[in-house]
Amino acid sequence: MVSFAAPSGTGKTTLLEGVVAELERRGHRVAAVKHDAHRIELDTEGKDSWRLRRAGARSTLLMGRDQLAWFGADGAGPTLEQAVALFHAEADIVLIEGYRSAGLPTILVERPGHTDDRWEPPDPALVLLTAKPDDVGPVVDLLERCFLT
Amino acid sequence: MVSFAAPSGTGKTTLLEGVVAELERRGHRVAAVKHDAHRIELDTEGKDSWRLRRAGARSTLLMGRDQLAWFGADGAGPTLEQAVALFHAEADIVLIEGYRSAGLPTILVERPGHTDDRWEPPDPALVLLTAKPDDVGPVVDLLERCFLT
Repeated sequence: MVSFAAPSGTGKTTLLEGVVAELERRGHRVAAVKHDAHRIELDTEGKDSWRLRRAGARSTLLMGRDQLAWFGADGAGPTLEQAVALFHAEADIVLIEGYRSAGLPTILVERPGHTDDRWEPPDPALVLLTAKPDDVGPVVDLLERCFLT
Repeated sequence: MVSFAAPSGTGKTTLLEGVVAELERRGHRVAAVKHDAHRIELDTEGKDSWRLRRAGARSTLLMGRDQLAWFGADGAGPTLEQAVALFHAEADIVLIEGYRSAGLPTILVERPGHTDDRWEPPDPALVLLTAKPDDVGPVVDLLERCFLT
């Protein structure tokens, strides 16, 4: 697992898209996690899963062939490690967006001239590389060296 | 785990809503699973998770505090048992809609006059009770007797 950290608006997802595509091109199986500390909203009023939640179900799963949604409460969800073990077991590498608190090795994404004073950079001891949003090649080279040999 | 089986349009979700609410009223922690063999669609074009899937990520997780979404491929998702173990670990009872193939004890829901010739009833050996959509009390009594003592 490797984390990508950047102030919002830097181009982190653009870099991740390029890195995913290039890793796959080089033959690696890539999985991704996006952490959304804010409330994501997957459910829709009136759907069966919404009706069961409203009726009082503490934890609701909607399972399809290649998709799954879970709706819980009170922060009782799985940890990053549990979720990755269950859902990304077959990946060669897992790219993480967010999850600063997990203390993972980190690619720090910076864009010249882009600053955000409210953003706190990650612990320098965790930073493997500082990259610009278009540094796909150097990032993939580093990931291969560190995680895929 | 107990399964609810009925032809579409019988009122199965209505019964489940009532059963969830009554079980919670009696102090039980209820979790629910809805199986959707058809393709559920949680993702939205343009979102970050969609961008990472399009770039080639084989397996993508979107994790929030009380919600999670997984997008995979090729039917490589978790089994019902794995998903229930991870997400519903704290439930006293898990009500399942769908998952006929799991061979679970089953509440068969029927509505007088409602038939569906294409629907194949579950194995009679699995049926605990045949109930109408408004039989909340008898169903909850049975669930308490079988699963909650």
